[in-house]
Amino acid sequence: MVSDNVIHELEAIVGQENLLTTPEERWCYAYDATDLAQMPDAVVFPGSAAEICQIVKLANQYGFPVTPRGAGTGRSGGSVPIQGGVVLVLTRLNRILEISKEDLVAVVEPGVILGRLKAAVEAQGLYYPPDPSSADFCTIGGNVAECAGGAVAVQYGVTRDYVLGLTVVLPTGELIEAGTRTMKGVVGYDLTRLFLGSEGTLGVITRIILKLVSKPAARQTLAAAFADLTAAASAVSQILTSGLAPTALEFMDRATLECVRELLPFPLPAAAAALLLIAVDGQPHDVEERAGRMAQFCGHAGADPVIRARSLPEAEQLWQARKVISPALKKVRPLKVSEDVVVPIGAIPRLISALQEISRRRGLPIHSYGHAGDGNIHVNVLYDPKVAREREAVAATVQEILAVVRKLRGTLSGEHGIGLTKAPYLGMELSPAAIALQRRLKQAFDPNNIMNPGKIFPATGSGLD
Amino acid sequence: MVSDNVIHELEAIVGQENLLTTPEERWCYAYDATDLAQMPDAVVFPGSAAEICQIVKLANQYGFPVTPRGAGTGRSGGSVPIQGGVVLVLTRLNRILEISKEDLVAVVEPGVILGRLKAAVEAQGLYYPPDPSSADFCTIGGNVAECAGGAVAVQYGVTRDYVLGLTVVLPTGELIEAGTRTMKGVVGYDLTRLFLGSEGTLGVITRIILKLVSKPAARQTLAAAFADLTAAASAVSQILTSGLAPTALEFMDRATLECVRELLPFPLPAAAAALLLIAVDGQPHDVEERAGRMAQFCGHAGADPVIRARSLPEAEQLWQARKVISPALKKVRPLKVSEDVVVPIGAIPRLISALQEISRRRGLPIHSYGHAGDGNIHVNVLYDPKVAREREAVAATVQEILAVVRKLRGTLSGEHGIGLTKAPYLGMELSPAAIALQRRLKQAFDPNNIMNPGKIFPATGSGLD
Repeated sequence: MVSDNVIHELEAIVGQENLLTTPEERWCYAYDATDLAQMPDAVVFPGSAAEICQIVKLANQYGFPVTPRGAGTGRSGGSVPIQGGVVLVLTRLNRILEISKEDLVAVVEPGVILGRLKAAVEAQGLYYPPDPSSADFCTIGGNVAECAGGAVAVQYGVTRDYVLGLTVVLPTGELIEAGTRTMKGVVGYDLTRLFLGSEGTLGVITRIILKLVSKPAARQTLAAAFADLTAAASAVSQILTSGLAPTALEFMDRATLECVRELLPFPLPAAAAALLLIAVDGQPHDVEERAGRMAQFCGHAGADPVIRARSLPEAEQLWQARKVISPALKKVRPLKVSEDVVVPIGAIPRLISALQEISRRRGLPIHSYGHAGDGNIHVNVLYDPKVAREREAVAATVQEILAVVRKLRGTLSGEHGIGLTKAPYLGMELSPAAIALQRRLKQAFDPNNIMNPGKIFPATGSGLD
Repeated sequence: MVSDNVIHELEAIVGQENLLTTPEERWCYAYDATDLAQMPDAVVFPGSAAEICQIVKLANQYGFPVTPRGAGTGRSGGSVPIQGGVVLVLTRLNRILEISKEDLVAVVEPGVILGRLKAAVEAQGLYYPPDPSSADFCTIGGNVAECAGGAVAVQYGVTRDYVLGLTVVLPTGELIEAGTRTMKGVVGYDLTRLFLGSEGTLGVITRIILKLVSKPAARQTLAAAFADLTAAASAVSQILTSGLAPTALEFMDRATLECVRELLPFPLPAAAAALLLIAVDGQPHDVEERAGRMAQFCGHAGADPVIRARSLPEAEQLWQARKVISPALKKVRPLKVSEDVVVPIGAIPRLISALQEISRRRGLPIHSYGHAGDGNIHVNVLYDPKVAREREAVAATVQEILAVVRKLRGTLSGEHGIGLTKAPYLGMELSPAAIALQRRLKQAFDPNNIMNPGKIFPATGSGLD
């Protein structure tokens, strides 16, 4: 619990109107997009980097945790204030400070909603590619903190590939600039990419310089239904090694398709075991040609039908079906554990087969979908918490899935981060020496462990270690 | 000086045949591609990661510096053993362990020559893009340590964008794995990218997992000569914001052109003030169309002639002329200080104008060329050390150039690193708080400061601080 004294000091920094202290108000900032929640002692909405510096210095002085938060759309508990203390909501820092066509950069504050940024950039004929499914409500600061991805990462890469520079309040209260406004830069250690994906544990981001690219002249979308998983996997592999450079290459398994069937703009065969959703960017003629060749690959691999979206609304309907999968799974079971594992591209078929086998054997629905083009598959273990058999089977099922992923030389998370939900599994991927090094690194940034404690590494005494 | 005892222990680890101790032999590993040199006390050629662990543990025990070294082609003194001790030459770790078409990855040891790797990858129909001018003799380990770039970074990015995972001997002697074999990964802090560009100060890389892409189906090269710098800059800007996605967009100023004029496969007009060298990758038809439109942009901006390479040998001749610029400058003056500054793309014309003015005023030849497509300009201040006026003018000229770059919101280095040569200028870019944080980070990795000491941050007492 933070003391009344701390509350008064916080009020002096941000003003009464930017401080929440009642239980009802605080509860609104206790959770994220997981099913986890923890009540903070206070919620503040700072209006500037200078205010954040003061708050962080106060935290060091009094020893309370500070948990930065954007829109709370994270999927691993990263913004849940698991040790209480102060939640630092960054939504007031929501200015797009600059979009420079000349330098191909945008300078933004962390609280800008990603969708708003993307639209503003596109209005200038430019493009900011990362596109997580939560784009319409997540913040760019959260994207940086978790290193968000999305469907077009196959061609364009993830958030990491677009952040050139950052302004950050360190856990010790100093404001520093890292990185550059330039396309390249190797001056000193790469703090910029170290902050990327550090889940709010190494500092509070207050300004972001993003690389922009030209808006693609054209995009084609196609969908291919397969009666056979192996055939779909073979088409993925052919497309990826063809030099045809897909922009996005998404996959949905049979169980997932059942949840979004009626949202698709074409009748899906009852026998469909997998759907591929493919986007291709480029010059109009070239896109036409490459999409045609990809459609051929799918056809030769056995896809039927192969549909090319003939209009923008039809393409958007296809992508909308993809984006609503996560909430649509509620139709099957009220709760789910979502893992966003990544395997080497060649191992995707083996992963999908293993998941089907595990689902059958464990008697739990497992729905898989996601970014086949980069091996990042969203694996959802669905369960009803009121059914004891299901509830009790979840933990072992997830553990088994992660073990399969590691055996296939994959990684535990591609986009969502470790946060709280995957912290118990960190040792499945990192050796004790690597974890010890990461702890020393955290210590070098945050000697008093005030910045989002209890994440990535379970904090001693949290019950997770 | 390392003691006889240490020499005996080193011999026990690597064998007599992999240890050099005579002054003549040691001198061969004292320098890099700068004009700096410092005699090491011993040179070892370890044959495995296990041997490197032993050597590093010995260094901690006895307190001697260890400086990792690839081919010694670095341009900032990064592999010069400035505090003596042991040079660790990694050329025996030179195996390409795997090239996987299925997973689109290569697994290599650090001593592999980049050109050999690129050829092996291309023989499989795949492509590893980074292409520094030293590709035929630099090692991939050095590329990772410095975050090497090259001409095609405009489209494909730099070494950082291709390193998925690393095996590293930490400065404390433990072997760890960082990163993944997968295209995405956000598990824990991003140690992989932290090692990228850390110039051998945070550990010894012993294995590298690289992302590969499909080999582009076609590449077109074109050259455009401009009588006017502003016109060339305008063409660069138009091409970059056109959505035509150039693969490479190289620039040479008038002074540089004079050095390579006879190497070009076409007669260059006497009035040429700038040459743009452009590459475009993609499907054959598309490349033809995009190269045509880029040629039009250049023509409209005033280029004459605009030459499209009509054969592979002709294209190679153009790129060869680009690659030999650095040694060709010796024709003008025996010595040079090479800076590889980067400015925001829109600031390139202002940088070039400023350089011409500085050259005139200071009476020193300044030759500029490089990667206009990402603002990374190689600025060479040429001088004759026997001419006192020139020799004495160099330091202030370089300092002035770097100040101009910072004023234009640029960075001191895009590819070459800080090493020794730019360490005195670190404070021009990083704040005291940022430098202090970087020192704490170094300390967290290397508590005894044995790993390539004296780089990035000038070591206390080195005369550079």
